[in-house]
Amino acid sequence: MILEIANYIGIIAFAISGSMKGIKKGMDLLGILVLGFSTALGGGVIADLLLGKTPPTNLTYLPYPLTALISSLITFTFYKIFANVGKPLLYADAIGLGAFAASGASLAYSIDPSPLLVIMIGSVTAVGGGVIRDLLSNEIPLVLSREFYATAAILGSSIYFILRFEGISNYYDIIISFIVTSLLRIIAMKMNWELPKAIKNK
Amino acid sequence: MILEIANYIGIIAFAISGSMKGIKKGMDLLGILVLGFSTALGGGVIADLLLGKTPPTNLTYLPYPLTALISSLITFTFYKIFANVGKPLLYADAIGLGAFAASGASLAYSIDPSPLLVIMIGSVTAVGGGVIRDLLSNEIPLVLSREFYATAAILGSSIYFILRFEGISNYYDIIISFIVTSLLRIIAMKMNWELPKAIKNK
Amino acid sequence: MILEIANYIGIIAFAISGSMKGIKKGMDLLGILVLGFSTALGGGVIADLLLGKTPPTNLTYLPYPLTALISSLITFTFYKIFANVGKPLLYADAIGLGAFAASGASLAYSIDPSPLLVIMIGSVTAVGGGVIRDLLSNEIPLVLSREFYATAAILGSSIYFILRFEGISNYYDIIISFIVTSLLRIIAMKMNWELPKAIKNK
Repeated sequence: MILEIANYIGIIAFAISGSMKGIKKGMDLLGILVLGFSTALGGGVIADLLLGKTPPTNLTYLPYPLTALISSLITFTFYKIFANVGKPLLYADAIGLGAFAASGASLAYSIDPSPLLVIMIGSVTAVGGGVIRDLLSNEIPLVLSREFYATAAILGSSIYFILRFEGISNYYDIIISFIVTSLLRIIAMKMNWELPKAIKNK
Repeated sequence: MILEIANYIGIIAFAISGSMKGIKKGMDLLGILVLGFSTALGGGVIADLLLGKTPPTNLTYLPYPLTALISSLITFTFYKIFANVGKPLLYADAIGLGAFAASGASLAYSIDPSPLLVIMIGSVTAVGGGVIRDLLSNEIPLVLSREFYATAAILGSSIYFILRFEGISNYYDIIISFIVTSLLRIIAMKMNWELPKAIKNK
Repeated sequence: MILEIANYIGIIAFAISGSMKGIKKGMDLLGILVLGFSTALGGGVIADLLLGKTPPTNLTYLPYPLTALISSLITFTFYKIFANVGKPLLYADAIGLGAFAASGASLAYSIDPSPLLVIMIGSVTAVGGGVIRDLLSNEIPLVLSREFYATAAILGSSIYFILRFEGISNYYDIIISFIVTSLLRIIAMKMNWELPKAIKNK
């Protein structure tokens, strides 16, 4: 129930982030809808494909895609307002990151409890949409070059695996992993955490 | 039968468009073949993956890939001629768009008659190849930023869903959806239809 | 056994090539690991998806992903050394190309002995990782615009198909195809083989 709400918060936040990017790139209404949709639901679609779950839930369970499309449409209509609410959006995005990572990891575990697969699918569910958004916008995916973002999803998915492996029931494991991932992301934003680079920034 | 012919017209038109792009980007023969192939058959491959139909028909039913490869090879050889036949190619492309959207929507409906899935798969079958072409060419996918193109595929796939849902037999539904999609695209070209943008072009 | 060793050589060489690219693009540690991982294992993942083999072996059979991650981590730590060993790396890369093409073609043949599918899957297994690497780095995939690289994989996969089709047992077919592909690639490097282009380089 908490996770369900967090999932919708994530879909809305991701759809807004995707459609804002489309607007900035000068795309038309359709491009903006596609970008919002892909950012919100693309990670889950890739995860389902990797797990052999076809057709993907995000395309057949209507409330999710409808939420993404309506959020993108509202962003398109009121984009000047959304351009000024960066901060609250970042929190919503962190909540979505945690919810997506926890749901993805849980789904993967129930199909094949291989540790790497669970961590991978949790992370792909969480950040895959953002990667698609940046590829379609002809940019290097942000998650690969900035900040403690995907790392939070990887740590959160790892925690999910450990909890479930240790026999924590299939509810607390999701909630704990969701909260830890989102908190990690929020703390990382507040503290400006960064991962090391091989070459220093110019 | 009509659809089968339209499908081949689409494969040829899409393969030419893909290999022309490869030629313009200075790719070698292989890159040009890959681009022609992906543009012509990539949408159908993604659609099959999303529907769990593996291996994808476009890779196992030989006449389709052979048509794409031969078309790309001919484009490579006579590229100067093809550079000057833009207009007829646009019509062939519109016919392909309609044929691909109708076949994709029909396949999706027979696997899972969820409205969004049918519309999505129809559209992906029609425009997915063009998106791959532009990603491989390091450009923002044209279908996301220009013209009434993907929109025609979305409308055509929606019409397919409605017709089939209303009980129109599995033949007229395809033909009508194919013709409507192609006509919409051609009219849109003639009339310079465009979708609204949030930010006006500079 | 020989193939298994060649496979690991390939994973290591591809992971180094991916993480070097990430380092050059100024990515942080995570981006570098993701790029190394995708380059080494992405081709096999796509091949498994196209064949309906989910979840993909590269994500569930731990030694492969661990090899990729450790290679990327070592590249990150000692990147200055790796920047100066271009030549041995090219040989390792050629060995990987052959090993991946032969394994991919063999897997495809055992699922569906359609000639085009076998050639396609062998080639995708061999060069798919490099294409993902370049897409994530916002560049036109090198394999599409330069050198006799993917062509070696295509020829090698074709040879695999012919050998197996002619009844050569499921061991020599792999070894011969592996050696021919790697040799073709190495000879092509030595001889500067190139494919024709429609437009001459400026």
